[in-house]
Amino acid sequence: MSSSLLNTLIDRLRVLPTVGPRSARRMALHLLQSDRAGGVKLSQALADAMTNINNCQQCQNFTEQTLCGVCSDQERDRSLLCVVENPADVDVIEMASDYQGYYFVLMGRLSPLDGIGPDDLGMEKLFELIRSVGVNEVILATSTSVEGDATAYYISDQLVNDDLKVTRLMTGMSAGSELEAISGSMLKQAFTLRQPFPASA
Amino acid sequence: MSSSLLNTLIDRLRVLPTVGPRSARRMALHLLQSDRAGGVKLSQALADAMTNINNCQQCQNFTEQTLCGVCSDQERDRSLLCVVENPADVDVIEMASDYQGYYFVLMGRLSPLDGIGPDDLGMEKLFELIRSVGVNEVILATSTSVEGDATAYYISDQLVNDDLKVTRLMTGMSAGSELEAISGSMLKQAFTLRQPFPASA
Repeated sequence: MSSSLLNTLIDRLRVLPTVGPRSARRMALHLLQSDRAGGVKLSQALADAMTNINNCQQCQNFTEQTLCGVCSDQERDRSLLCVVENPADVDVIEMASDYQGYYFVLMGRLSPLDGIGPDDLGMEKLFELIRSVGVNEVILATSTSVEGDATAYYISDQLVNDDLKVTRLMTGMSAGSELEAISGSMLKQAFTLRQPFPASA
Repeated sequence: MSSSLLNTLIDRLRVLPTVGPRSARRMALHLLQSDRAGGVKLSQALADAMTNINNCQQCQNFTEQTLCGVCSDQERDRSLLCVVENPADVDVIEMASDYQGYYFVLMGRLSPLDGIGPDDLGMEKLFELIRSVGVNEVILATSTSVEGDATAYYISDQLVNDDLKVTRLMTGMSAGSELEAISGSMLKQAFTLRQPFPASA
């Protein structure tokens, strides 16, 4: 490329997942040729987000405040805690269900092969929260993938001596599915018909 | 999303070609969770590129100078002008061939269905350049797509009364192919064996 700024941009675009050298070049040329204003806005949004978004001190979800919107809402039901893998799962549940409890966002799932263990997901913080707030029911809404299952088993295992109910969303979730993949009405039903977990408990 | 900065970022990422709401969310979460430094660098590279990259006054290629590196190189052969569709084509030719002439970058190709006509590609500027510099041979290196062919025919048509040779890269270019898709040695050969255009001329 005759422009070194263009080379740098192409190189930097590759931090985006699934973007290889060819798509990066296509993206850079598209912005330069057809949407410079959009490129400038994207630059600003990136800077704002990378600098000002942190993790909610209670649930780990992304927020620009100390506590996220859900955790700072005093009207919600403190006896219910729903454990999800990703920020997106919170949105899906909020939109589709009548769930009124709080959340804990693992920001991932146990995956020994990728080197992701309990500490990386903030498990200690989760158990502390459960015990300090006096949660009556922990709803495991991890995905039904192998890792999602393992994560659910790990959590229920650690809570086996606590005096609380552990349930999991089962209905309508086929094996391997992410929360996002389920329709709104299915998810609502899955919440209503949640089952004790593990099944033998 | 509980974070409005995150919502804004997801929204802004969609200026990138082929990025829909889901990939935009995946990109934003990936940067926040795993590569904030990369996100900040991308933001800076975008701002720099969008603000400081302009078009070379002679060949239209992207550059942060008045003239691009090729056009400001006085050692090159003024009698040869190669017409390409995209900045990427210049790189491909520079890397693969011994071509020592100048370029003109159309920044697209004729496509009436998309509303792209001669004016959008800077055709007047191209013909002015050809006539003012005293070019002996115009090498059409547009793609072999329908639009690339139409573009090549349009240019050769406008030059039919000028005292110069018009050639086109043919060898090794199967129908519909972009310059990028050809191997280096093929492209080198295509330059060596370039043919008068149109064939009947």
